[in-house]
Amino acid sequence: MTVRTWRPEDPGPVAIALDTLVAGVHFRADVSPRAIGHKALAVNLSDLAAMGARPRRALVHLAHPDPPEAWEREFAAGLDALAARFTLRVGREATRRAPLTVTVEVAGTFPHAARPPLRRSGARPGDAIYVTGTLGDAAGALAGAAALAGRLDLPEPRVPAGMALRGIATSAIDVSDGLAADLGHVLRASGVGASVETARLPLSPALLTAFGRERATDLALAGGDDYELAFTVPPERERLLAEAPLEVPVTRIGTIERGTGLRCLGTDGGPRPVPRGYEHFVTGAGRDGEGNRDAPSAPEPSPRP
Amino acid sequence: MTVRTWRPEDPGPVAIALDTLVAGVHFRADVSPRAIGHKALAVNLSDLAAMGARPRRALVHLAHPDPPEAWEREFAAGLDALAARFTLRVGREATRRAPLTVTVEVAGTFPHAARPPLRRSGARPGDAIYVTGTLGDAAGALAGAAALAGRLDLPEPRVPAGMALRGIATSAIDVSDGLAADLGHVLRASGVGASVETARLPLSPALLTAFGRERATDLALAGGDDYELAFTVPPERERLLAEAPLEVPVTRIGTIERGTGLRCLGTDGGPRPVPRGYEHFVTGAGRDGEGNRDAPSAPEPSPRP
Repeated sequence: MTVRTWRPEDPGPVAIALDTLVAGVHFRADVSPRAIGHKALAVNLSDLAAMGARPRRALVHLAHPDPPEAWEREFAAGLDALAARFTLRVGREATRRAPLTVTVEVAGTFPHAARPPLRRSGARPGDAIYVTGTLGDAAGALAGAAALAGRLDLPEPRVPAGMALRGIATSAIDVSDGLAADLGHVLRASGVGASVETARLPLSPALLTAFGRERATDLALAGGDDYELAFTVPPERERLLAEAPLEVPVTRIGTIERGTGLRCLGTDGGPRPVPRGYEHFVTGAGRDGEGNRDAPSAPEPSPRP
Repeated sequence: MTVRTWRPEDPGPVAIALDTLVAGVHFRADVSPRAIGHKALAVNLSDLAAMGARPRRALVHLAHPDPPEAWEREFAAGLDALAARFTLRVGREATRRAPLTVTVEVAGTFPHAARPPLRRSGARPGDAIYVTGTLGDAAGALAGAAALAGRLDLPEPRVPAGMALRGIATSAIDVSDGLAADLGHVLRASGVGASVETARLPLSPALLTAFGRERATDLALAGGDDYELAFTVPPERERLLAEAPLEVPVTRIGTIERGTGLRCLGTDGGPRPVPRGYEHFVTGAGRDGEGNRDAPSAPEPSPRP
């Protein structure tokens, strides 16, 4: 149980992300404690990045049945190293309890109030669709490519890109469930459709080497856990995008269209099927419900009078 | 994984409480889903009450291995009924996963900025020590008194009292680990000692009937889970206290003194021993570390440069 006060550094809205990671479900039980600390914080920072928030404060609860001292130290080191890069203050608490679970809450603010938070609901026909970095690498690691393990275990939250995209992007989301699934959330929230040219998907050399182009494209479309940002930009803001301090390369992969649904186009311009969705590590453990991941644009249940 | 934006309704600091309740550790596995929903929110509201914050927004993550629909509906009803009383907006998310775990984050604000948040560190020699409601009832329920089960399963967070005490109390804490233990936190944070007259402890008729005065006094001193507020008031503010809209009776139980440590006095004015601390339901499951429960007054680890 933790409580703290915090005086937001910027006026206007605050963003609050909350996530619980369980060993064997959200990370491999044999992964290093440093990576667990990193990833638990990274996935929450990625949620803030998708809104363009600047992370300010975090609370971390670790439940571990019997943590060796070195384990706790490494876990904290993984957290602290990532937090330090964003000048994020972290409060920690530990409980002896199974299963190994990490709960992280991160609060952020929106500097430059004139540039509103990024939402999923702002994509408009004619907007270009972009993604940061490369896609499919985390899924490639899950599929056995050892060279990509770092992309699965130590994801890089795109915090500077998210902050820079406020005022430029009309919508944004972080790719945690797979590009097709997450773009689908944007399309539904925005009431639009889209086409994606799969030949344009940014694929890492390591992914192409390990799986070849076809399978790599499948992984990029359906694989999760990449924590890249997908976002939409209207034509008149392409110039602003080119000049924005994103701190990561971005690739145009498609276009927002009228209508509904996502059309994936192959190299011949014809439709390309999207493979089945990505699964978590433990078969049968179940997926997180979508719940109110759409919360910024979806209504919350109203309190009864 | 949940993220939302929220525009704080009041300027100044915000308060954020975070807690994870696990079946068999923090609540009885056979308790009703309505009570689980209530208690998961109540313990976080109690943390905000101890700071005098007004609760505004909550995020709730439910992990359940296989929740029947009626179970989820009752759980939500327990949450929503409590939330509605404080006009608190709640976002919910569910995951299929064992063990049954509820994670709650609640954010609050501080209306009337001239009255600062309550802290543990402000008690001064000469202040009177008060508690809300009655003590020991939850521990009495744990010890077998069925008539007190509601006090254990459906604790009442003292939100209106906490809000009204800003500007009046010099320190406050919620009694979750037992009066002696929690007052100890206040004494250490404030650098003072205290004496408590055990004959003044507010004991419910049901507790006295079930256990007699001596054992009831032990339960009141060492039993946890009551979620009443303990707070300190300087003599010149007793009048303000009497007029404050606390929405719960309060009882003066002792006095803050110079020095350190808590002295408990019996009916003869001599020292009365404090029984051993309260244990959670499951023997050997371990207690939550104190962690940064003192966060409002304790420094957080600084990020490395």
